[in-house]
Amino acid sequence: MLSYNFYLITTGIIMKAFVMKKINETGIVDKEIPAGGSYEALIKTTTTLICTSDTHTVHGAIGERTNLTMGNEAVGTVYKIGDKVKNFKVGDRIVVGAITPDWGSVAAQMGHPSQSNGALGGWKYANIKNSSLADYFHVNDADANMAKIPDSVKDEEAVYAADMMSTGFMAAENAEIPLGGTTAVFDDRPVGLMAVAGSKMLGAASIILVETGPKRIELGKQFGADEIVDFRKVDTVDKIMELTSGKGVESSIEALGAEVTFQNAVKVTMPGGTI
Amino acid sequence: MLSYNFYLITTGIIMKAFVMKKINETGIVDKEIPAGGSYEALIKTTTTLICTSDTHTVHGAIGERTNLTMGNEAVGTVYKIGDKVKNFKVGDRIVVGAITPDWGSVAAQMGHPSQSNGALGGWKYANIKNSSLADYFHVNDADANMAKIPDSVKDEEAVYAADMMSTGFMAAENAEIPLGGTTAVFDDRPVGLMAVAGSKMLGAASIILVETGPKRIELGKQFGADEIVDFRKVDTVDKIMELTSGKGVESSIEALGAEVTFQNAVKVTMPGGTI
Amino acid sequence: MLSYNFYLITTGIIMKAFVMKKINETGIVDKEIPAGGSYEALIKTTTTLICTSDTHTVHGAIGERTNLTMGNEAVGTVYKIGDKVKNFKVGDRIVVGAITPDWGSVAAQMGHPSQSNGALGGWKYANIKNSSLADYFHVNDADANMAKIPDSVKDEEAVYAADMMSTGFMAAENAEIPLGGTTAVFDDRPVGLMAVAGSKMLGAASIILVETGPKRIELGKQFGADEIVDFRKVDTVDKIMELTSGKGVESSIEALGAEVTFQNAVKVTMPGGTI
Amino acid sequence: MLSYNFYLITTGIIMKAFVMKKINETGIVDKEIPAGGSYEALIKTTTTLICTSDTHTVHGAIGERTNLTMGNEAVGTVYKIGDKVKNFKVGDRIVVGAITPDWGSVAAQMGHPSQSNGALGGWKYANIKNSSLADYFHVNDADANMAKIPDSVKDEEAVYAADMMSTGFMAAENAEIPLGGTTAVFDDRPVGLMAVAGSKMLGAASIILVETGPKRIELGKQFGADEIVDFRKVDTVDKIMELTSGKGVESSIEALGAEVTFQNAVKVTMPGGTI
Repeated sequence: MLSYNFYLITTGIIMKAFVMKKINETGIVDKEIPAGGSYEALIKTTTTLICTSDTHTVHGAIGERTNLTMGNEAVGTVYKIGDKVKNFKVGDRIVVGAITPDWGSVAAQMGHPSQSNGALGGWKYANIKNSSLADYFHVNDADANMAKIPDSVKDEEAVYAADMMSTGFMAAENAEIPLGGTTAVFDDRPVGLMAVAGSKMLGAASIILVETGPKRIELGKQFGADEIVDFRKVDTVDKIMELTSGKGVESSIEALGAEVTFQNAVKVTMPGGTI
Repeated sequence: MLSYNFYLITTGIIMKAFVMKKINETGIVDKEIPAGGSYEALIKTTTTLICTSDTHTVHGAIGERTNLTMGNEAVGTVYKIGDKVKNFKVGDRIVVGAITPDWGSVAAQMGHPSQSNGALGGWKYANIKNSSLADYFHVNDADANMAKIPDSVKDEEAVYAADMMSTGFMAAENAEIPLGGTTAVFDDRPVGLMAVAGSKMLGAASIILVETGPKRIELGKQFGADEIVDFRKVDTVDKIMELTSGKGVESSIEALGAEVTFQNAVKVTMPGGTI
Repeated sequence: MLSYNFYLITTGIIMKAFVMKKINETGIVDKEIPAGGSYEALIKTTTTLICTSDTHTVHGAIGERTNLTMGNEAVGTVYKIGDKVKNFKVGDRIVVGAITPDWGSVAAQMGHPSQSNGALGGWKYANIKNSSLADYFHVNDADANMAKIPDSVKDEEAVYAADMMSTGFMAAENAEIPLGGTTAVFDDRPVGLMAVAGSKMLGAASIILVETGPKRIELGKQFGADEIVDFRKVDTVDKIMELTSGKGVESSIEALGAEVTFQNAVKVTMPGGTI
Repeated sequence: MLSYNFYLITTGIIMKAFVMKKINETGIVDKEIPAGGSYEALIKTTTTLICTSDTHTVHGAIGERTNLTMGNEAVGTVYKIGDKVKNFKVGDRIVVGAITPDWGSVAAQMGHPSQSNGALGGWKYANIKNSSLADYFHVNDADANMAKIPDSVKDEEAVYAADMMSTGFMAAENAEIPLGGTTAVFDDRPVGLMAVAGSKMLGAASIILVETGPKRIELGKQFGADEIVDFRKVDTVDKIMELTSGKGVESSIEALGAEVTFQNAVKVTMPGGTI
């Protein structure tokens, strides 16, 4: 069995936690409040979200787990702080990334923190470590993996920065959109929508969103999409080539994870562009 | 003497041209309309600008020139076109970059077209080649060095894309501004102002402009500057460090070319940032 | 039908050429010696090679062709030279790349010359243009697409630089091998072998070659392979993981083009590495 | 006063240490053996070196220090190890970098670990922290800042990897030497010599070393220099331009830190090259 509690010393004090008891079974249980080390923090949860990946996990996507506390994106206040944490103090209002890398690992040193200590090794919460659907949760490498929330930003706003915004924005950054370029975004679930918003902020002049749901199309336009390609009504590739006068787009962002969208992304990207 | 006409066959047809006759002397003279080759274009000038560098050249900054046609940024219509030019036809309304690289040169192949065939070798107009302050002018490698102007853009707008916008925007691109980052721009003459505009479009959340002239400050704000540091009233470095809570900026853009601004750019950029 | 002669003016002088007459039929025919333009060169062939891709083309891999002169890698002497070519003169001994990009194209300006004016648009010879299995052949953008051969290098050595060495070396460059890193090369046909040699020259401390043929294994070792993984005798992924103490390699080079080798390349590359 | 002991809990056990007592005064004193935390290590010194920067420090280059243990490059065996260190155990023979970054800091996350938590913030030993000229020394972030020494490498060999080799090799990596390119290295003290060796390993075909001392010239040739430019006998820039047929070098490495060598590096690098 996976020992996802391996680096937590428990405190003996009891809190409530929403857990995956085993595959296809969840519940609220009593757990001990975790304890942290010198570089770590213990956070009192104020706002947290469930991610689609939480539901996948409960349904067995990554194998069996026992009494694993779920949750994906979290905001809270610092409850206890390690003696070597420099940038935070008890009471600070903070947001924690869904991905909490080991920053000293070889992969992080090579510029790929998400892959620290293993493929997707930066993904610990609700995978190999108890997460934020509990009264308190633990943060490793607190100086590196937490950010203070400005007074002007509410908890329920900040919580979206932990995964949806950061993942979508990074997709837009990796797309190397030239200033004034054209970007195609495949799928506009939260990450795709934030890839649209990120592309807009990074200087894309024209953003083509591939989507079919009316509500998502509405949101996509609101976040900056200039053109919508409804893959149920038209041929995606033909339509994007038509919209770009046969040139294709400079940058494609694949935000779904299916083979067909990857292939379409390749097909609509101009020679020399970025996928 | 520099043979800046080396690759032009003249046509025998006369036009008017504004030239640098010699250092500190200009005038309007009769010149033959140039002729182009297979990959080249001959442009009928409609709109053109003088650059500060034109005045420097006339005052001797780059040495003696004889009857060199001046001009820096140009818009026109295609008058004659080489038989191997693929993307343009006679009558097209086009803008030409102030820098017209030799795209096959070693430097261009290495990603530095401005340095093609020599340091600043991409700078030909009003340097080693007759430029656009004439009825007609010549474009080398027409497919690579011209761009069509959309109908919605006027000549007098497009002409700013030839140098001020492209140079300022490239400065902003090279500054590797992280999404939401802070940028300091030193000097807001046209290139600096366009670096402000480019930084804004590329996702800078906070742009600090170092400037003193009231009109330029007004324009800088209009183009996206959030803070103005007037170097005549405050210590530039101290003020920028104060504005960034002692952290410095992620990216600095030096758009003046003086030693003091370079040094200040280094001083205000945070460790790990880009200058 | 593809007009692969589109930019050649013929000279009326007859030469011999080895052509693909149509799919599955080749022969030697009389052809006119091509003529070049201002930036171009006409080369008298001295040494040339057939590539596997030539045989694929003859068997119909890229569609029908009519009397297309074949050949892939070529060395020759400059026979005629355009008036605007700066770096070469008649009589120079030169090598020409199998890929002859249009260096001013958008894709080349974006750093991807092989994709100039279309996907794989830099690949012209024996595709959309007559190649070097003839007494003479034509070179576009001669300054950019030819290189002089030093006296110390023989024709039959230089000809390997046109494709095998340049493609294999570029694979090694793109692999971003850290100094002292471990590289896995899948397949050691000529390009794979040159990827091994390139990895060695670029500082790889350990090169693992996946290969089965005894002769190729011998050559692979000669070019720098430290370990051989014979995919017919062992499980490729298991063996590479064992050779790297379970860590995987920093860089993988896939030089075959099959799905299984791509997947294995992903599997054996450490998190944070390059494929 | 700088509190360079800030994160060390002392153990009460006494060892000998060679210290800078104050500016221009050194001596051997009794000190307590340091204690480490969860992610840290305590090393029993076996081999260590003095760097020129140690002598600069003693002479006041970075300001006053009191009883600061000196030393720059160190090899030792793990004496105590934190409970969260994964990759090392007591008794391991290890080498520690002269630079020991805080890998979670913003600068390290941005790819510049040497600048973590301040300009040159990665430089702690014999600057803001007691170093290795003592029986024992302390390592922060042990998993990230130590490396095991293979059995085939002796202590007195491994110790050169901690600064001279790693700094010189990184200079060569940053020089972006194209495979087969020409590199000029200014100065061949240890870091310069290792930049020569690194350039050789990274595929430079021709390495020009600017140096004057006969012994260093001998070593430079041994490490891979193809040409020596003795700046006391010839004009450095003229000679390098002559050696490169007027083209200049693709890459320059400035390893001295003087204004003249920086300017010469700029002058001899071809347009489009890297300095």
